[in-house]
Amino acid sequence: MSEVKERIRIPARTGWSAKLSEGEEFRIIDVEGGQAADLFVYNAENPIEYMSGRHTRVYMDEIYPRAGWTFYSNERRPILEFTEDTSPGKHDCIVAACDPYRYEHLGAEPGHASCETNLQAEARKYGIEVPHAPQPMNVFANFRVDAEGKLTLHECVSEPGDAATFKLLMDGVVIVSACPQDIVGFQPGGPTDMAIEILR
Amino acid sequence: MSEVKERIRIPARTGWSAKLSEGEEFRIIDVEGGQAADLFVYNAENPIEYMSGRHTRVYMDEIYPRAGWTFYSNERRPILEFTEDTSPGKHDCIVAACDPYRYEHLGAEPGHASCETNLQAEARKYGIEVPHAPQPMNVFANFRVDAEGKLTLHECVSEPGDAATFKLLMDGVVIVSACPQDIVGFQPGGPTDMAIEILR
Repeated sequence: MSEVKERIRIPARTGWSAKLSEGEEFRIIDVEGGQAADLFVYNAENPIEYMSGRHTRVYMDEIYPRAGWTFYSNERRPILEFTEDTSPGKHDCIVAACDPYRYEHLGAEPGHASCETNLQAEARKYGIEVPHAPQPMNVFANFRVDAEGKLTLHECVSEPGDAATFKLLMDGVVIVSACPQDIVGFQPGGPTDMAIEILR
Repeated sequence: MSEVKERIRIPARTGWSAKLSEGEEFRIIDVEGGQAADLFVYNAENPIEYMSGRHTRVYMDEIYPRAGWTFYSNERRPILEFTEDTSPGKHDCIVAACDPYRYEHLGAEPGHASCETNLQAEARKYGIEVPHAPQPMNVFANFRVDAEGKLTLHECVSEPGDAATFKLLMDGVVIVSACPQDIVGFQPGGPTDMAIEILR
């Protein structure tokens, strides 16, 4: 069983990142419940390669990320494994990250935090310029598609302390945004803090 | 009723592009049936803005493109309208474009044509560098998600002459790739020629 090497708090509405090596594991924890995290992974050496939902779902033959999944990059290489999940298992990989345009349309104050701007700020620390956010894995985001293709942004059902654990399959820059969405009401508990555990 | 100003043949496995103005319409025709086209649209003036599936489906509240849809960009602006459809209406917007990595894994000869390389070559004509293909609209691609989230690449059901018509909602570079997929058997008629009609 992996031990926790380090635990980091991600304050509500903010981003976190780390450069991790192939084989390293990290855990995203919904501290208070009902909060989603946008997860992005870039190839540390070649950041035009990143974790890609549209490639991954073709290999996994399904659209909902779950423990046991291998995420693929846009160069079709395994990049991240979803190893363990103590939540009810509702995660998304087809809905865009929130961004300044989204909040402008929703009537928010200018400068509202977003997963896109959190991503851009974290990526810049590693010299990675992100013009616009790619498809995130929306951890704990309960977005569902029905048999006719209708998409509904249901409320997060994660409980306090629920955790999703991942393992790097290449050296990667991992970026997590504690989603600042406070207008569209899919985060019943949020925006609240999240936590990251780096495992050894 | 719009008249056809110009009809262009897209040879099987190849790409086509044009810079069109806001309000201009074009039609993608499956000449022989059973063939899919990957469709991409870039903002002509600012190509970091492009047609985005992950943004569009949130506004449309569904995952399958159909006539009546407005496609949004990754800056959440209307970019393309899907105005008319004479096909059975099976289209996709969640599966990645085929690319050299895909064909390498499938055991194809090096240099196999792909929608990504077709896109890159066409985009370069307008000075647009595309490191990797974004999510295309896969016109006539019958990829379906069931009630449990399982994704299946069913065969195209488009008939000879079936056509999908679109209208630009901003000045855009439109790129179409007649999908060269000949290993994964979802194109029962393909790879075959497609045609484009520019309407006045």
